[in-house]
Amino acid sequence: MTDLDLAGRYRAYLAVLNERRLDDLVEFVQDELTYNGEPLTREQYRDLIAGDIEAIPDLFYDARIIMATDDRIACRILFDCKPEKPFLGFTPDGGRFLFAEHVFYRFVAGRIAAVDSLIDRHAVAEQLRSRAR
Amino acid sequence: MTDLDLAGRYRAYLAVLNERRLDDLVEFVQDELTYNGEPLTREQYRDLIAGDIEAIPDLFYDARIIMATDDRIACRILFDCKPEKPFLGFTPDGGRFLFAEHVFYRFVAGRIAAVDSLIDRHAVAEQLRSRAR
Repeated sequence: MTDLDLAGRYRAYLAVLNERRLDDLVEFVQDELTYNGEPLTREQYRDLIAGDIEAIPDLFYDARIIMATDDRIACRILFDCKPEKPFLGFTPDGGRFLFAEHVFYRFVAGRIAAVDSLIDRHAVAEQLRSRAR
Repeated sequence: MTDLDLAGRYRAYLAVLNERRLDDLVEFVQDELTYNGEPLTREQYRDLIAGDIEAIPDLFYDARIIMATDDRIACRILFDCKPEKPFLGFTPDGGRFLFAEHVFYRFVAGRIAAVDSLIDRHAVAEQLRSRAR
């Protein structure tokens, strides 16, 4: 797969998330993967994403930078959303949150085998704090 | 500059940090840049790094993933360090901390013009919390 193909494949994966077609994850995610070093089945990974979507109904993965080389993707994703249930350990306050995720993926045979993700929880905490004043 | 050249240039930049040759930043950083969206002069950027090194004398930038495409670098950096002064808003407890940074750079004419960085403050907070029990 060329770098261009892999980037396209990754965009198709993000479309699956944004269009809530989680049954299609089988096409993009290995049966078993690691998420921040922890082993997960695809079903567990799907459950994580389903939980995020339940807490944040308007969650949209807005990829601002996508880089593809060999078997890796790096992506800077922005979220601008209104959580309705607890998320990332935070209790929502009814307002919108703007925060980033920086995430690296390793693909095996065209499907995600490893995810290393950092989410800007600090930005979420600061937004909660500034509105609580 | 090819992707390979840019990755090599980025490794040379990390060597400058790890070898504390901050005067050499002029070769790798534009006169003005943005850091997480905020405009900085190179001198201010250097001061940020110098402050980190002062707080964490054994700070070592251990690049685990480096991706280069066109004018961009993405890097996953691991830190395994013993802070001696307050860092990232935390008060050190004398112990070691293991945490990651996921960072995207945009280069202009071979020098850094923009940095978007996420540091895993959550991991630092968890390590502090678990040792305080």
